[in-house]
Amino acid sequence: MRILIIGGEGTIGKVVSDHFSEEHEVITAGRKHGDVTVDIADSASIDTMLEKVGRVDAIICIAGEAKWAPFNALSEEDFYIGLRSKLMGQVNLVRKGRNYLNPNGSITLSTGILADDPVVKTSSAAMVNGALHSFVKAVALEIESGIRLNVVSLGMVEDAYEKYKDYFPGHNPVPMEKVVNAYVRSVKGRDHGRIIKYYE
Amino acid sequence: MRILIIGGEGTIGKVVSDHFSEEHEVITAGRKHGDVTVDIADSASIDTMLEKVGRVDAIICIAGEAKWAPFNALSEEDFYIGLRSKLMGQVNLVRKGRNYLNPNGSITLSTGILADDPVVKTSSAAMVNGALHSFVKAVALEIESGIRLNVVSLGMVEDAYEKYKDYFPGHNPVPMEKVVNAYVRSVKGRDHGRIIKYYE
Repeated sequence: MRILIIGGEGTIGKVVSDHFSEEHEVITAGRKHGDVTVDIADSASIDTMLEKVGRVDAIICIAGEAKWAPFNALSEEDFYIGLRSKLMGQVNLVRKGRNYLNPNGSITLSTGILADDPVVKTSSAAMVNGALHSFVKAVALEIESGIRLNVVSLGMVEDAYEKYKDYFPGHNPVPMEKVVNAYVRSVKGRDHGRIIKYYE
Repeated sequence: MRILIIGGEGTIGKVVSDHFSEEHEVITAGRKHGDVTVDIADSASIDTMLEKVGRVDAIICIAGEAKWAPFNALSEEDFYIGLRSKLMGQVNLVRKGRNYLNPNGSITLSTGILADDPVVKTSSAAMVNGALHSFVKAVALEIESGIRLNVVSLGMVEDAYEKYKDYFPGHNPVPMEKVVNAYVRSVKGRDHGRIIKYYE
């Protein structure tokens, strides 16, 4: 299998890339690091990346940003950071990426627990995650050529626990083994239109 | 109570306005019709409306658009119609409207069943609805001054059944009595951060 992982050098992406690399050809993409560069907030940059990479069997996106701040402090423009990057970046990856998939290929997006169980300062991030959950359900009804589309929604992951634990009082870290399994399930299973939730 | 209803002259809005008018002062707002005009996709227009209306006890939004089309036919720009109008229009109503609420006032947004149970051609509309569900949950953790924030998510409503039934095969129309009750519950109950779902 040939697998494109956007964000493949990030905290979660690196672990997922390393796992798939054991048996498959993995191409990583990122803003600064990776085999190819891409800024998913820029749809022309997505085109360039896909053109360079060519046909693949799976596209995994573990990238995209949204601004974390108190609701009172978020401007209209701040909300658009998340809408352009984590939301429309992933939507555009589906719109464009499906044309680069081999038959029966799959696309896996990433969101997180905030969609269902937000914490303070995450009104923008939660919104983007919730949007993607409903988007995946809706597109799954229509997408053609046997393409499968899923989204992985994780709780706070173990490797980010030290950095983020103060934002998530009382949350339980998700072991990295489960993190990897969520993506393996999406890529190698038969799930389609599914929100793969691993909350501890 | 003084209640501002954006979209108060629409299919659902008219029924809700008529109900609240029996006992309360209702101000309706809309793009073309209503006591004041507003285009919620334009945040300056929201400011103007709020300035004109002044302090209220409740703000209800039953407005906002998103483009319905097959996923294959939706351009990036098409998705932004829903993001600017139904999504950010309602987000901006919360951001700005809370400053015009009397103590213990409430804001009620509107989404719909597509967030949870989409049909074909609704990838943009479903996305916007899902975004608002997570947004309301997140903002409810932070909003101050005893303000309550809820969102009403209805199945296909009875009065729109003839027009939309072909899009919703096998869906059951929601009686208008229940539609009204969803908004009454949000405005007059003590719910906060709740997605009031009436699916039949």
